[in-house]
Amino acid sequence: MPDLSEYHQLAKDMSVDAIALVPGPNFTRAIGKAFMSHERPFVVVVPAEGAPAAIVPNLELGSWALVGFEGTVFDWRDQTGYDDAFAALAEHMPIRTLAVEGQVMRVFVSTAFTRALPDLRIVDGEREISGLRLIKTADDIAALQAAIDISERALHRVIADVRAGQTEKQIEQALIQALFSEGADSLSFPPIVTAGDNSARPHGKARADYKIKAGDALLFDFGARKYGFAADITRTFFVESASDEGRAIYDTVLSANRVGFEVCRPGVTAHDIDNAVTGVLEASPFADRIRTKTGHGLGRDVHEAPYIMRGNDQKILPGMVWTNEPGLYELDNFGVRIEDDVLVTGDGCRSLTHFPKELTIIGR
Amino acid sequence: MPDLSEYHQLAKDMSVDAIALVPGPNFTRAIGKAFMSHERPFVVVVPAEGAPAAIVPNLELGSWALVGFEGTVFDWRDQTGYDDAFAALAEHMPIRTLAVEGQVMRVFVSTAFTRALPDLRIVDGEREISGLRLIKTADDIAALQAAIDISERALHRVIADVRAGQTEKQIEQALIQALFSEGADSLSFPPIVTAGDNSARPHGKARADYKIKAGDALLFDFGARKYGFAADITRTFFVESASDEGRAIYDTVLSANRVGFEVCRPGVTAHDIDNAVTGVLEASPFADRIRTKTGHGLGRDVHEAPYIMRGNDQKILPGMVWTNEPGLYELDNFGVRIEDDVLVTGDGCRSLTHFPKELTIIGR
Repeated sequence: MPDLSEYHQLAKDMSVDAIALVPGPNFTRAIGKAFMSHERPFVVVVPAEGAPAAIVPNLELGSWALVGFEGTVFDWRDQTGYDDAFAALAEHMPIRTLAVEGQVMRVFVSTAFTRALPDLRIVDGEREISGLRLIKTADDIAALQAAIDISERALHRVIADVRAGQTEKQIEQALIQALFSEGADSLSFPPIVTAGDNSARPHGKARADYKIKAGDALLFDFGARKYGFAADITRTFFVESASDEGRAIYDTVLSANRVGFEVCRPGVTAHDIDNAVTGVLEASPFADRIRTKTGHGLGRDVHEAPYIMRGNDQKILPGMVWTNEPGLYELDNFGVRIEDDVLVTGDGCRSLTHFPKELTIIGR
Repeated sequence: MPDLSEYHQLAKDMSVDAIALVPGPNFTRAIGKAFMSHERPFVVVVPAEGAPAAIVPNLELGSWALVGFEGTVFDWRDQTGYDDAFAALAEHMPIRTLAVEGQVMRVFVSTAFTRALPDLRIVDGEREISGLRLIKTADDIAALQAAIDISERALHRVIADVRAGQTEKQIEQALIQALFSEGADSLSFPPIVTAGDNSARPHGKARADYKIKAGDALLFDFGARKYGFAADITRTFFVESASDEGRAIYDTVLSANRVGFEVCRPGVTAHDIDNAVTGVLEASPFADRIRTKTGHGLGRDVHEAPYIMRGNDQKILPGMVWTNEPGLYELDNFGVRIEDDVLVTGDGCRSLTHFPKELTIIGR
């Protein structure tokens, strides 16, 4: 049986009758097994008091049996729909307040709850529920390190073969191949491989019709997923040569990234880190090229707490992992981002990413 | 400028003030470009009357400029949050009813709307909004066929190398490699590669510690994604030999799959198809092994309308694409599923999947 005691306790702490988990990172952590939901409601409900219950699509019962869940299960079939299962759950567990993961639960599930329980008050408990994943265990860190190591090996292989004349899309496909070949279970997200003006778009897509050329910035933002944990790494290279502007921008971003490591220690806030890192960018001649915050937490989710941004007074604690990813972007020109995955330790921090980050010319 | 006329018209037809689209298949179709959302609200609002508006994360403005959107844009930055953008949208467009994609929009976005517009009535318009994707265009079908062809080439390569003693996980990884090597942009979903007892779990996960052995059923359910469209194919093989039970089950499932093609033509309902296909399984000695409906629509989403199940009186029309995937599953024993992607034509249907489906022994 999965140990749900933290979730029972959280429901008490939040003064709600129950917490709902839907397939995603919290569900996987709580249940010990990953599921997908697609168009089918699939929910575990953990009350403040008493045994949990679950709404499970009938076709998942075989996989669900492996979980060892000790609670009432209301299964449902596609042919008859899920409203009866929600109604049965409501009768079994007549809750009045329910905390949900606002960033994961979709509206068709929240409305299924309110059809069954018209007076139910649904609270967005994303911060609190995902907050249980803030402090990584040794196993979590080992999994994340494995994902990062795979990612770095893949990047080393790919950049060795980059040449002017290749398209962004070709390089992106080579990176994906290398990630799986190095042992990725899946990808943290569709990799970003962007060159030249496209690198100025923080979430740009690889183009099939753009051939990289001498002098281009070439940005890789990507990660392998392994054992349920997601790496997230960015490196920006220059093809064959770097302009003076390119070098100046790169040096500025690298300085900001280094400051992130210098200020990070238990007790400072997420605000403090972003303030220091972004402060370096603001003090440079390139302040008008700032477009993003410093970073975000990293773990089972590729974007999770702590969000490293001004105004966020969340305390940084040992065992947290966050991305240190300052960047400078000028539309119609180019962008540079350098991103490391940082583990907060007892007295400071250390990088889980070890890929070199000195300015590197590739493709020659 | 993307042509949003269908969405304006749909808002009128649904008698709502506006339709909201969030990143996902409808958004990509409407806007002509794919975006991701993560923890950042990103919404296009198309009113019944007047110009559209959008809430766009500031860091996406560079990519957003490529869309050519002619409407008011409310951008927001991580540091200041998104509530002001929703408030500004609410003042600009004081809507009272909003249809959303219930299977795509997450609760943190719907609650952002209701904070800005406390009296807003949010309607789940998933069926209607995604309904605009029901009838595929020639371009849609060409993209889907490309995704299917890639998937089939990958499967041919993988099964040629399957041998007893390999783990499910090894075979899964080989399949992923082959899919990208054949040209996949990404995967429709994490592939299902399951053998023996695991094949009885319709959504089972490949095990790293199970070595396939002679006599095992070996099930592949997978697909490449190409040009925004998702293939979804299942084939079940037997390793080195097939038992009499295996052959009998396989023949029954194949007969059911063939009946799906026979009954499918414009004018029948989704119910009619499932009724005929599942009827074959029910009339067999293996009726207790039925666990799923016949299938689902396929396109930009790997699961979309029309859902091919009893009780669904949706009319089947030319240009629809659906998965014909009957299966029989016995827990602790094995499962067999055969899945083709079916295009409805003017006077019947044809399979977009061409991978052979006669019982096939592999690994020798």
